[in-house]
Amino acid sequence: MRVHVALTPADASGLILDGWTAIAVDVLRATTTVVAACAAGCVRIIPVTDSGAARERAALFTAGEVLMAGERGGETIPGFHLGNSPLEFTPERVRGRTILLTTTNGTAAMLGAGSAGAGAVAALTNVSAVARWALAQGRDLAVLCSGDDGSFSLEDAVCAGLLVSDVASACDAELSDAAVAAVGLGRYYATRIGDLRHASRWARRLAGKGHSADVDACLRRDVTDMVPVVEAGAIVPGPAASAPPGTTGPRQKASCDVIGAVRAPTPPAQAPEGSPRTAGPPPGDVLRLGFPEGSPRTAGPQPRDVLRLAVRPGGRFGRGARPPSGDPSR
Amino acid sequence: MRVHVALTPADASGLILDGWTAIAVDVLRATTTVVAACAAGCVRIIPVTDSGAARERAALFTAGEVLMAGERGGETIPGFHLGNSPLEFTPERVRGRTILLTTTNGTAAMLGAGSAGAGAVAALTNVSAVARWALAQGRDLAVLCSGDDGSFSLEDAVCAGLLVSDVASACDAELSDAAVAAVGLGRYYATRIGDLRHASRWARRLAGKGHSADVDACLRRDVTDMVPVVEAGAIVPGPAASAPPGTTGPRQKASCDVIGAVRAPTPPAQAPEGSPRTAGPPPGDVLRLGFPEGSPRTAGPQPRDVLRLAVRPGGRFGRGARPPSGDPSR
Repeated sequence: MRVHVALTPADASGLILDGWTAIAVDVLRATTTVVAACAAGCVRIIPVTDSGAARERAALFTAGEVLMAGERGGETIPGFHLGNSPLEFTPERVRGRTILLTTTNGTAAMLGAGSAGAGAVAALTNVSAVARWALAQGRDLAVLCSGDDGSFSLEDAVCAGLLVSDVASACDAELSDAAVAAVGLGRYYATRIGDLRHASRWARRLAGKGHSADVDACLRRDVTDMVPVVEAGAIVPGPAASAPPGTTGPRQKASCDVIGAVRAPTPPAQAPEGSPRTAGPPPGDVLRLGFPEGSPRTAGPQPRDVLRLAVRPGGRFGRGARPPSGDPSR
Repeated sequence: MRVHVALTPADASGLILDGWTAIAVDVLRATTTVVAACAAGCVRIIPVTDSGAARERAALFTAGEVLMAGERGGETIPGFHLGNSPLEFTPERVRGRTILLTTTNGTAAMLGAGSAGAGAVAALTNVSAVARWALAQGRDLAVLCSGDDGSFSLEDAVCAGLLVSDVASACDAELSDAAVAAVGLGRYYATRIGDLRHASRWARRLAGKGHSADVDACLRRDVTDMVPVVEAGAIVPGPAASAPPGTTGPRQKASCDVIGAVRAPTPPAQAPEGSPRTAGPPPGDVLRLGFPEGSPRTAGPQPRDVLRLAVRPGGRFGRGARPPSGDPSR
């Protein structure tokens, strides 16, 4: 399984995701909200590009069947039923309803995931369940970080890294450079998710706007097994990707037997050569699971190469950045 | 001092760097080669966009005064005097010469650094010297990673993180999310630079093309105090940013007294709450140097905000990606 992380929307621009599994991530707050809405029993969420599109689509539904939700500038849009706070999406509000959701970056990533062979939505609140679901798809995996107004977002990269870390611990994954970096960040923050309240620019901004409770709600890990999946332009509650009975912890839960890969040995709790001071996230170790030194695997196309083969001008996802050149020189 | 890292060329697109210090990084191999050439006594390096531009510029010099250097596809360009291997740039070959250098990604980042208030070139081989030089400029700092054919490159992010880590340890720096992430990667790889031989896609590719000696040469840290600086479209050997006498280690060497900032307390060797297993890179700690909880500093514009104010369509550096939208909603 090849694994890539698009750290920003521009990184994902031009990727053709046919045949891949793609996972959209916008921890603060769009994908956390989608997970909450699905867990609360909504029928579907339809991502739309702006408030005008939401109103046009809403007119096609009967009254009471649909809710308009979203934000601009971190605040609810006038006339909309809901904002973009996961705390608003309770069973009382959303059960049995269709939700039209517009947020700037999260929407683009979710629509991008819809162009893949299989697409789903991840947040910290369901990240381990999504990792199990992604393994079960038996496809190469791309994680699409929504970012912060087009730029790198720490909390999205951490979520992507936790997801990839689970996947790479369970099967013979080949990681791109960005996936290696995300794994390092994910493993570092795994035991200190709360630090993101201060380390993430957008978390600080949301708290400054009075949304501290939302930030706290979004920075919880694995509170649900709900995996929202993307189908035909809408996001629907997927089958719960429960852990197999009698197992605990992501490494035991995840399996890649479905794709016939060789299970990698469980990495040691601490690298033998590492001092306690330097025993932190081991992205290189993860990579070596896929690239043992001198392995025949390293002779063939590398993950980025394969992605480059799939690049075309004017790709389906992103903010219009040019796709990478086919010229491998630098 | 605000500090930002552009992890890819697209991330840097549209940034206006007037008044900032900008540092170009392309560890494998362009900026390592530039550092080697300057340390070997060349007069200047002129980055040019392609081999045709190199030949046009070369015609303006007298024979023997200029060397054409560069690569396409990792190999020397026919008719050129030198490739892009730092090992070729010996005093015997380059002393007293002007070098016209063309490489795809490294060239763009170096020209981008030239648009800043002060620009320089960093590699692992001179990263601590560049950190001291950057502190001495007394300006906000942007590190421009060249990336791997437009995508995220692990070794460039690690180099940027080592640079920012030194800077943030020496003064009251405000870090963007990408800078926090780079610091985490830099601190993780600081004690295992050699792991990048296998963790970096481009390192593996270069080794596969027979350039293992180049990779080894590029993955050495702090072998010179040479800081190449960008002036009027050319890169010239700068004054050596030597460590003050009687000091050792980056934290003691670096100083931000020149900008009147408050020196942050030296972080503890290990966070009190951290188990040995989780005592790795502490990006959150670094951020807190700049953002103590409840500090008045957190009330004002944050680093990304300031960068966004400086964004305009069609910026000077990058691969043509659209600049981030001014709409802060997501």
